[in-house]
Amino acid sequence: MTTPIQYARDHAETFRQQLFELLRIPSVSTDSAYTGEVRRAADWLAADLKRIGMQNVAVMPTAGHPVVYADWLNAGADKPTVLIYGHYDVQPADQKKDGWSSAPFEPEVRDGFIYARGSSDDKGQAFVHVKTVESYLATDGKLPVNVKMLLEGEEEIGSKNLQDFLKTYADMLRADVAVISDTGMTDVDQPEITRALRGLTYMQLDVQASKIDLHSGGYGGAIHNPALALAQIIAKLHNPDNSIAVPGFYDKVRPLTDTDRAEIASLALSDEKYMEITGAPGIWGEAGYTADERITGRPTLEINGLLSGWTGEGAKTVLPAKAMAKISCRLVADQDPVEIYELVKAYVAQITPPTVRAELKLLNMGDAALMETDMPEMQAAVRAYERGWGKAPLFARTGGSIPVVADFKRILGAPTIMLGFGLNTDGAHGPDEHYSLEMFRKGIDTAIYFLEEVAK
Amino acid sequence: MTTPIQYARDHAETFRQQLFELLRIPSVSTDSAYTGEVRRAADWLAADLKRIGMQNVAVMPTAGHPVVYADWLNAGADKPTVLIYGHYDVQPADQKKDGWSSAPFEPEVRDGFIYARGSSDDKGQAFVHVKTVESYLATDGKLPVNVKMLLEGEEEIGSKNLQDFLKTYADMLRADVAVISDTGMTDVDQPEITRALRGLTYMQLDVQASKIDLHSGGYGGAIHNPALALAQIIAKLHNPDNSIAVPGFYDKVRPLTDTDRAEIASLALSDEKYMEITGAPGIWGEAGYTADERITGRPTLEINGLLSGWTGEGAKTVLPAKAMAKISCRLVADQDPVEIYELVKAYVAQITPPTVRAELKLLNMGDAALMETDMPEMQAAVRAYERGWGKAPLFARTGGSIPVVADFKRILGAPTIMLGFGLNTDGAHGPDEHYSLEMFRKGIDTAIYFLEEVAK
Repeated sequence: MTTPIQYARDHAETFRQQLFELLRIPSVSTDSAYTGEVRRAADWLAADLKRIGMQNVAVMPTAGHPVVYADWLNAGADKPTVLIYGHYDVQPADQKKDGWSSAPFEPEVRDGFIYARGSSDDKGQAFVHVKTVESYLATDGKLPVNVKMLLEGEEEIGSKNLQDFLKTYADMLRADVAVISDTGMTDVDQPEITRALRGLTYMQLDVQASKIDLHSGGYGGAIHNPALALAQIIAKLHNPDNSIAVPGFYDKVRPLTDTDRAEIASLALSDEKYMEITGAPGIWGEAGYTADERITGRPTLEINGLLSGWTGEGAKTVLPAKAMAKISCRLVADQDPVEIYELVKAYVAQITPPTVRAELKLLNMGDAALMETDMPEMQAAVRAYERGWGKAPLFARTGGSIPVVADFKRILGAPTIMLGFGLNTDGAHGPDEHYSLEMFRKGIDTAIYFLEEVAK
Repeated sequence: MTTPIQYARDHAETFRQQLFELLRIPSVSTDSAYTGEVRRAADWLAADLKRIGMQNVAVMPTAGHPVVYADWLNAGADKPTVLIYGHYDVQPADQKKDGWSSAPFEPEVRDGFIYARGSSDDKGQAFVHVKTVESYLATDGKLPVNVKMLLEGEEEIGSKNLQDFLKTYADMLRADVAVISDTGMTDVDQPEITRALRGLTYMQLDVQASKIDLHSGGYGGAIHNPALALAQIIAKLHNPDNSIAVPGFYDKVRPLTDTDRAEIASLALSDEKYMEITGAPGIWGEAGYTADERITGRPTLEINGLLSGWTGEGAKTVLPAKAMAKISCRLVADQDPVEIYELVKAYVAQITPPTVRAELKLLNMGDAALMETDMPEMQAAVRAYERGWGKAPLFARTGGSIPVVADFKRILGAPTIMLGFGLNTDGAHGPDEHYSLEMFRKGIDTAIYFLEEVAK
């Protein structure tokens, strides 16, 4: 009798061809001109899920692009329920404008990599799970665990309708553990499990002096220029050692233990490497921490945008009425995003001079996530990677945020395992995005093993 | 025999009707849709100048809107030559969008004021001189001095072709003194002569860290955010007492004497008045100086614009590659605009951290101007105002810049007298711009007296 692993081997070429079909659909969620294509990708996935034997397959409407849902719940009540999350929408891509070597929606294989928009982020990685389920159902006729699959079409536009969807269908989606394959690793030969995500508090600071823009000749020198005042406020948000000056900001930060630091160091890049990748003339950051510790284990305060007065070409002698900054903090466990907003707000109020008015608004937020390595589901993932790769995985942390992880915890009560099968060099969001055929194959193996291991 | 003054009295209603004709032409120089109207205003003025007996009347092309030129040079070589400058282009105006009480290009008189775009800035004030010349030629048949008239059509778009025009026609335009009527006074009953204009050094500061925008999750905390670095640089441009921190910045500033300070105080507004006018919550500025001294007698460093990263609605977690600020200094005598640029550049280089790259470009500049009160032409203006108003004028300083004043000095060798006949409350550039009929009448009287006085 054929095993799921053997089935996956035997159908590797078919799986690739099927993935190519999906990659050919330009499901660009950010551009309303592609709304029909996004829908077409959802329908394509729903048809494949039906074909392989998944149940309750539905393309479910939201206020935006639809969610593809499917489940298979016949493993029995004593077996865990795994919620598999992925997204089928992609970033925009224009061959000429963005400088692709081949057409972004005409996938082709070069040197063992599939080149196409969405190949890694996230169609390729989501498809790993569809083919995993197929490999089981086509051989064993059943899955080792109960599986619910949720493939959304708005990840690239901030998953803006997903939270409502999770709330509305919380009972239907309830699971013991969630799995997301939407992260990368550094080395194709060394598996990694991302176990930490940073949270986010995203704010807007508006500073105003006069009611309307003034002539800089008529009033300049006697009215506090709000762009200057904004810069003066921003300059007080960090201490000379580049730590954040907001009182109380670090109070709830879980300190990095020696084990944490060793874990981070195991996958760290050198300062020189960061300079090479970014082109920045130097490495910057909080004193006492390495670049990787700053990015993955410590909170930050970034200026994401600035706007005031005249920003076009040439000169306009305006004394602006207003100046605006977008300010965001990446948070680590156990910081609370709302509390951080309150702390920054109080500090800004304290340092704002009486010659201007300042208002700090909360725009967006998300909790940090730190998954313990001794969780049974995490240990199941460790064993799955060991079997899939023949090598024990390292634990990794990312500086980014995947807000849905906190939503899964809060709304569905499920912890999330980041079962990433991408590479950090895949070029997600950039030109020539690609996905390693080897990662695709190892990913399916590992996902097959994971369902087996998590059932134990 | 009728005197020029009597002629102006007798024709006051005709003059007003003629000005209305000119005001009905929407000569908006900033909007290419109005190019034909700008030309029509130039032609209208040329026709009026011919009709009243001016010579060599020409609508002269530039790379943009034309210059109207006319002269009358029969006063004799022993009489001075006066170059009268004005502009016939206006700011845009939209009755509904901008909230005008009446149509901006359908002038009407309400409570002794002409309401129309350009009524004060500068068609009304420029027309004072046309009617002054007419009043002489229609009565005496001659002018007391040689007169050259230059009316440009690009003042509201920065007189961008005027410098070239002055250079090309320097011989034709050569004069002993230039006269500009494009400034205002505070009180209709108290004449003022503006004798100080601030200079300008307008720069752009670009700060860059990474080559391209980065994900704030992937790199935030380890790369110096250029918007933060820009704010940190800007925050170091002023000292805690709000003086400018650039070394050498004040070295050439001509200090305010007790006489200067008394002169400024004679027309000063209270801090409360500035707060009321601007809506700012407080008055700000260099310690040791009043608001009016800061605006008119001291140099400034303003932030005219800021731009970096995401400036739209909502949140985008970008770590920007670049941040930009428009920075300008208003200068006073005897600061040199280029030297100021070099000083700011050296200081910015000194305070820029090694974790970012900064570049400071010079965009625009202009010399400050300070006209001595004992100049014969200035004394002629004083006597003219005394006769026109029945009251001695006060000397005023403006915080703004009129770059053409420096151009007249440098290219034509002529000092400029600011023979302003507007009121500061005329609402130039704003809705419901208006011009006092009394100022129009007194202006013509005073301009008639000025030509007589300057001939002495």
